[in-house]
Amino acid sequence: MEHPENSEEYAGLTVNKGVQQPPMTNPYLNFKARPRRRTLTAADYVEGIRKGDVTLLSQAVTLVESQRSEHQALAQEVIEKCLPYTGNSKRIGITGVPGAGKSTSIDVFGLHVLKQGGKLAVLAIDPSSERSNGSILGDKTRMEKLSTQPNAFIRPSPSAGSLGGVARKTRETIVLCEAAGYDNIFVETVGVGQSETAVHSMVDFFLLIQLAGTGDELQGIKRGIMEMADGIVINKCDGDNVERAKLAAAQFRSALHLFPLPPSGWTPKVLTYSGYYELGIDEVWNMIDQYFAFVRKSGYFDERRREQEKYWMYETINEQLKRNFYTDPVIEEMLQAKKQMVLSARQSSFVAASEVLDYYFQKLKK
Amino acid sequence: MEHPENSEEYAGLTVNKGVQQPPMTNPYLNFKARPRRRTLTAADYVEGIRKGDVTLLSQAVTLVESQRSEHQALAQEVIEKCLPYTGNSKRIGITGVPGAGKSTSIDVFGLHVLKQGGKLAVLAIDPSSERSNGSILGDKTRMEKLSTQPNAFIRPSPSAGSLGGVARKTRETIVLCEAAGYDNIFVETVGVGQSETAVHSMVDFFLLIQLAGTGDELQGIKRGIMEMADGIVINKCDGDNVERAKLAAAQFRSALHLFPLPPSGWTPKVLTYSGYYELGIDEVWNMIDQYFAFVRKSGYFDERRREQEKYWMYETINEQLKRNFYTDPVIEEMLQAKKQMVLSARQSSFVAASEVLDYYFQKLKK
Repeated sequence: MEHPENSEEYAGLTVNKGVQQPPMTNPYLNFKARPRRRTLTAADYVEGIRKGDVTLLSQAVTLVESQRSEHQALAQEVIEKCLPYTGNSKRIGITGVPGAGKSTSIDVFGLHVLKQGGKLAVLAIDPSSERSNGSILGDKTRMEKLSTQPNAFIRPSPSAGSLGGVARKTRETIVLCEAAGYDNIFVETVGVGQSETAVHSMVDFFLLIQLAGTGDELQGIKRGIMEMADGIVINKCDGDNVERAKLAAAQFRSALHLFPLPPSGWTPKVLTYSGYYELGIDEVWNMIDQYFAFVRKSGYFDERRREQEKYWMYETINEQLKRNFYTDPVIEEMLQAKKQMVLSARQSSFVAASEVLDYYFQKLKK
Repeated sequence: MEHPENSEEYAGLTVNKGVQQPPMTNPYLNFKARPRRRTLTAADYVEGIRKGDVTLLSQAVTLVESQRSEHQALAQEVIEKCLPYTGNSKRIGITGVPGAGKSTSIDVFGLHVLKQGGKLAVLAIDPSSERSNGSILGDKTRMEKLSTQPNAFIRPSPSAGSLGGVARKTRETIVLCEAAGYDNIFVETVGVGQSETAVHSMVDFFLLIQLAGTGDELQGIKRGIMEMADGIVINKCDGDNVERAKLAAAQFRSALHLFPLPPSGWTPKVLTYSGYYELGIDEVWNMIDQYFAFVRKSGYFDERRREQEKYWMYETINEQLKRNFYTDPVIEEMLQAKKQMVLSARQSSFVAASEVLDYYFQKLKK
């Protein structure tokens, strides 16, 4: 936000660094009746968001993403005022190996959702995204059809220095989008670190996009992801790849059979489709609709959202407890020394840890 | 350990609560020249352990398990002195669903290991074990053959109030056993909480004992366990269950094919056997030997043990940071209130967490 002194609204005067100032004249001769750009209050943002004003929604999301403390304070105000209007959406997490055709699929899935009359927000979690590079995920140019739709709101991943920060800002963005009437939320992630776990903990349904393998080397998936999925969809089931895709689907179905049911009691489904040729899209979305009907009926939908809210409170606390400890430079040094003691079998990990903790809690008292 | 005043060694006097004391007599008339049980020093314990003295090893493990602070201090001394003598063993974690025949299998696997000339310690992690009830795991009566073997050392799970405590004491027991020359360590666990993760983080090889399903309902396994396993062995491959067992093995092999290789680079193997009829035991142990040859050659064996040492130092720290916070009664109350605020959408989980954290760090300064 520019300092008011730099704005053109100062009656007739422009203040530019290093530029020779025009001579003072009678201000009333040069006065232009231009509306002053006033600073928006939290209430202004919320009012605009509630009306579905995309510009104000965008600006509010930018506030959320900002690292500046005055922005963060204002963002928290906006979020708090939006909280009563949240919850009325389907939150769907989407992940898949690179090359699985995620962007094309989100484009096609998104259009399908919009055709049924909803509004769609597409968000992304990519802890490696740098503001200067832009995030690969949520890149509008890769979602050609969606990016031209008025009822679609697409944002790249926030960058926030840590997965915890990125996850929090994404959840806060979900709050704003829901308050703005977006009743469908996609959160996409590529397989970086624990980002799938983070996404799984903020969505209702977790969709895994897979590919059929070629012969013996199947496209492996990251450990732990398969057990998170509520639906696995095999892409590129088209042309001469159809047989392979259907075989892969059968293999995944068998594998899932070996696992216990997820807490929802829902049997994860495996389907094939083609994002590029737009085949099987209805079936995928019918399956997702079935899921939502199933979990709403059983009460698991509400229960899971409550658990997620609690989870994020505890997760925030645990992250901060650790950060307070591990970012202390003296502690960092002590830990390096202790690591050597432990690795050379001179001290047990328990005693090493205890000594550093004792120092920490002593130090906090000062 | 009994208080010395209660021991019989007090010259001629026995002190029992509620029992009428015998009249005082001339102590010299009743004096029995019994050697006074002197208090053992850490060096005493270590000397005995290094000689393979099972009685002293047992007593040292009891010290480790004790909740009394003077015992814990002595235990840590003993552990530290034993550290240089640790590491020379194969540590094998064993898990399986109830009914999979774990005890019988450990009995049979254990005998096989002893026949090849080694010494075997069988430990257990069961966070739900209560000292008064005794742990189901490590119950010697269930390992009929092993419990009579002089070179087998069997202990039930320690009880320690938390999984972290149980895991730590088990690892400390491993230290003592290795110093006593036990070159094979089994750590068994039943599927309680995160105990498999704890076991996986303290062993070299993780063995999952499974059963064939009956028709459509396969014996489900706990989420996440399959991806931890270095070997999956299907028990009860005998009699008219052979076909089903081999089919289950094929299904598991297929399923494993869908996952990426574990960090070791080792392809997890699936075998069938019969614990009760002692069939296929050689093959199972050949497979485990192949694993150890593989990871020793690649250097992964050493790397993993180093990672595990570091892991436990950080795990101990993280657990204590959390305990210090969550066991504070005022914090507990605040969290209950905050949970309600968050669940009723009156406050974001981030703000709720931040407020409790602010209070905590202020309080620590006093």
